[in-house]
Amino acid sequence: MPASAAVPPEFVAAAEAAADLAGAVIRPLFRSALLVEAKGDASPVTEADRAAERAIRALLAERFPAHGVIGEEYGAERADAEWVWVVDPIDGTRAFVTGRPLFGCLVALLHRGGPVLGLIDQPAAGERWLGVAGARTRFRSPLGGTVGCRPCARLAEAELSCTSPDMFRPQDRPGFERLRAAARRVTWGGDCYAYGLLALGLVDVVAESTMRPWDWAALVPVVEGAGGRVTDWDGRPLTLDSDGRVLAVGDPALLAEAIGLLAG
Amino acid sequence: MPASAAVPPEFVAAAEAAADLAGAVIRPLFRSALLVEAKGDASPVTEADRAAERAIRALLAERFPAHGVIGEEYGAERADAEWVWVVDPIDGTRAFVTGRPLFGCLVALLHRGGPVLGLIDQPAAGERWLGVAGARTRFRSPLGGTVGCRPCARLAEAELSCTSPDMFRPQDRPGFERLRAAARRVTWGGDCYAYGLLALGLVDVVAESTMRPWDWAALVPVVEGAGGRVTDWDGRPLTLDSDGRVLAVGDPALLAEAIGLLAG
Repeated sequence: MPASAAVPPEFVAAAEAAADLAGAVIRPLFRSALLVEAKGDASPVTEADRAAERAIRALLAERFPAHGVIGEEYGAERADAEWVWVVDPIDGTRAFVTGRPLFGCLVALLHRGGPVLGLIDQPAAGERWLGVAGARTRFRSPLGGTVGCRPCARLAEAELSCTSPDMFRPQDRPGFERLRAAARRVTWGGDCYAYGLLALGLVDVVAESTMRPWDWAALVPVVEGAGGRVTDWDGRPLTLDSDGRVLAVGDPALLAEAIGLLAG
Repeated sequence: MPASAAVPPEFVAAAEAAADLAGAVIRPLFRSALLVEAKGDASPVTEADRAAERAIRALLAERFPAHGVIGEEYGAERADAEWVWVVDPIDGTRAFVTGRPLFGCLVALLHRGGPVLGLIDQPAAGERWLGVAGARTRFRSPLGGTVGCRPCARLAEAELSCTSPDMFRPQDRPGFERLRAAARRVTWGGDCYAYGLLALGLVDVVAESTMRPWDWAALVPVVEGAGGRVTDWDGRPLTLDSDGRVLAVGDPALLAEAIGLLAG
């Protein structure tokens, strides 16, 4: 599907409904006594994550029985279908477990392997980014912010964001360190939320590694619908076969400099 | 003043009024077009930080002309007074600049050098922690959460939080690395907010360095009023002469193990 073709509105509605369902499952657990008592034991979160993924899968199966689904908790079904949903009800487990409203529920739709719809939902604060191929990203939040990546043509002026210095494989570290040394500043933490901030023009570059399809699929339409770009560390589009190294830039002019440093 | 003595209610009211004033100055700038355009240039933030600190100082000077004030932007006045206010309108500049609702406005009151009142305000999301010596910490937030540090007697079970791996002086790194290796897990980012989460039983230990009085003074009453402890890395109470190394634990039973690792 060319980027200019319209994603059917019933697909967009299903993505929003899926995120609503997940939020209803997840929200009561956030900062709850159950989580305080669990004390680092992720099992209540895993349980909520699974319950939310089951709810999303049931919704999608009812509305689009021919579509595929890939999720972190329950694997892949019909992954070779023309349309494949990719979901992660709780991206940013660590943020969730420690009470930070920076985790997200991610819902994406691939068309012939390429992401054409992405939704980042922050159910605690009530924030939602919705990206659809060929359209401007939409955003609603009680905290403010306006969609639109900002111009930033040089890494020396760029705000870099990364979830954790511990997320890289040894072979990815030197590239990341080169990027980091060139950037104006780095802010740690954020998971999917950092890509949302990039789509609001508040972050200029995010570089991460060991990302699975359910981590990145929703981010691509959100960022690209705000004027940015998401690729692997060699500048290629992300696919289900990508190696997990993800680069997002707000200003496409940053891409060459960032790739040059990451690829080394 | 012994911890059991009551802090005068008009002091508590002034702290809340000061945070309200700061929030009114700061909130409009958060995620604003001005900040997007500034692109990493901190001057609009510095300007808001200064305007908020001026507003707080004017309020305090009017209500308590004999009290001292220490602030990041305008230095110390009457720092040898019996009562000294310590303020930082925007703690977590990097979080603020990149649009994360994890920065905080900090207002503290020292009595003969020891913090007896601390307020952490998150003006974007509308969260506020208020700690007063001798009383239970109070918390209000639209995101949920209940005051009370949780039991966690062993670092191996502890959620560690730290704003950035880059915040340590070279001599502080080995101690932090030992603590980090012993902890169950580390989450990066957070500034003052991480101490608020510790007071909600969602984080078990925070260890940081290069902290100034306006960074830590408000955190002490918030954490201790929730059952936790805040000390330097040798287990001593923080004072204006402390060396900037701050340790907070939710369960006082963690203190000995943490200090043993940090001090080496």
